[in-house]
Amino acid sequence: MSLVTANISTSLDGFVCGPNDSRENPLGDGGERLHEWVYDLASWREIHGIEGGETNRDDEIFAESIENVGAVVMGRRMFDNGEGPWGDDPYEGHWGDEPPFGVPVFVLTHHAREPLEMAGGTTFTFVTDGIERAIELAMDAAGGGDISIAGGASTIRQTLEAGMLDVLEIHLVPILLGNGIRLFERSDVDGIELERTRVVESPVVTHLRYRL
Amino acid sequence: MSLVTANISTSLDGFVCGPNDSRENPLGDGGERLHEWVYDLASWREIHGIEGGETNRDDEIFAESIENVGAVVMGRRMFDNGEGPWGDDPYEGHWGDEPPFGVPVFVLTHHAREPLEMAGGTTFTFVTDGIERAIELAMDAAGGGDISIAGGASTIRQTLEAGMLDVLEIHLVPILLGNGIRLFERSDVDGIELERTRVVESPVVTHLRYRL
Repeated sequence: MSLVTANISTSLDGFVCGPNDSRENPLGDGGERLHEWVYDLASWREIHGIEGGETNRDDEIFAESIENVGAVVMGRRMFDNGEGPWGDDPYEGHWGDEPPFGVPVFVLTHHAREPLEMAGGTTFTFVTDGIERAIELAMDAAGGGDISIAGGASTIRQTLEAGMLDVLEIHLVPILLGNGIRLFERSDVDGIELERTRVVESPVVTHLRYRL
Repeated sequence: MSLVTANISTSLDGFVCGPNDSRENPLGDGGERLHEWVYDLASWREIHGIEGGETNRDDEIFAESIENVGAVVMGRRMFDNGEGPWGDDPYEGHWGDEPPFGVPVFVLTHHAREPLEMAGGTTFTFVTDGIERAIELAMDAAGGGDISIAGGASTIRQTLEAGMLDVLEIHLVPILLGNGIRLFERSDVDGIELERTRVVESPVVTHLRYRL
């Protein structure tokens, strides 16, 4: 059965992005440090068309997070870094002609737009009917694979609050950002219990996997 | 050398206390679930004068958190559950005649008050000059032992922001409280890096220790 999964790096104080984020500074001040652990990994480099890289425990964790993905769901801001509603020269995402997904991607937005077919198997479909509909479409398109909720934080929270998230893996990075965008904002979740299914300590990051 | 340490249980979404906390509901709605892992432990029971209890990995962790403590620092609200400024019949804490500390305890407050000597080695000294002074007094009183910052969250944050915290151990409980008091509020910490020194998975809780 397809699982709906989310993988996200957070600081110890719970931020997925530093303060002062903008189109030019999409991860906010200091936010790139949340992702430093992935850039040298062989599996991350491979999907970005770069040779070589580390093949350590972090690499296994990252490889695992993408290996069974049949479709992706993301928020509009993740797609366009806040470029805003589509104009005459609509933005095509910040991943170039051949985005690293290689599967159907469903982008949550309030602004309807025709689908976008990219090289390498990535298509972007724009969904204006909310998270539940986006996940439904992703399920249909995933061919039995898992649905990866790529982010941002608000899209992950919407999935969780809709009761549709099966697996949450937090890559906990030992820094304090102090400010920015939180993975968990105050909400009405009210006492959801999770089952911790795995903890992996790599040299710096702690990978915490939970089943909902 | 004395270390300044803080041990605190948080929910996965970062709360140390659930919503709607009050004098009668000091841990807030659902907040008692953050501490369920300690109540059956032999080392917790021992300092509360109760026999028996579990002697598992959680018990070792809890025992360790108190074994070298020479003095304690806490916020006023932790001392009196928000009972408020001292009246004619001043509150004596909610631990009875023989509080479980057995060492000098320094209570941060804006309201001066005479020290309070309890049975079993616990004394409460009320400090109105802020966190740095409280820690200084605790150092002097600790006889070479460690200083435990007992909480609440705001007292731990003040210690951290003053650059005086050496060790932070978070007991991460796999529940989402959705609301309440956070361990980390937005602040100016701006990119503090920690060193993760230990991760222990007990059956439910993940104990994460960091060195500052």
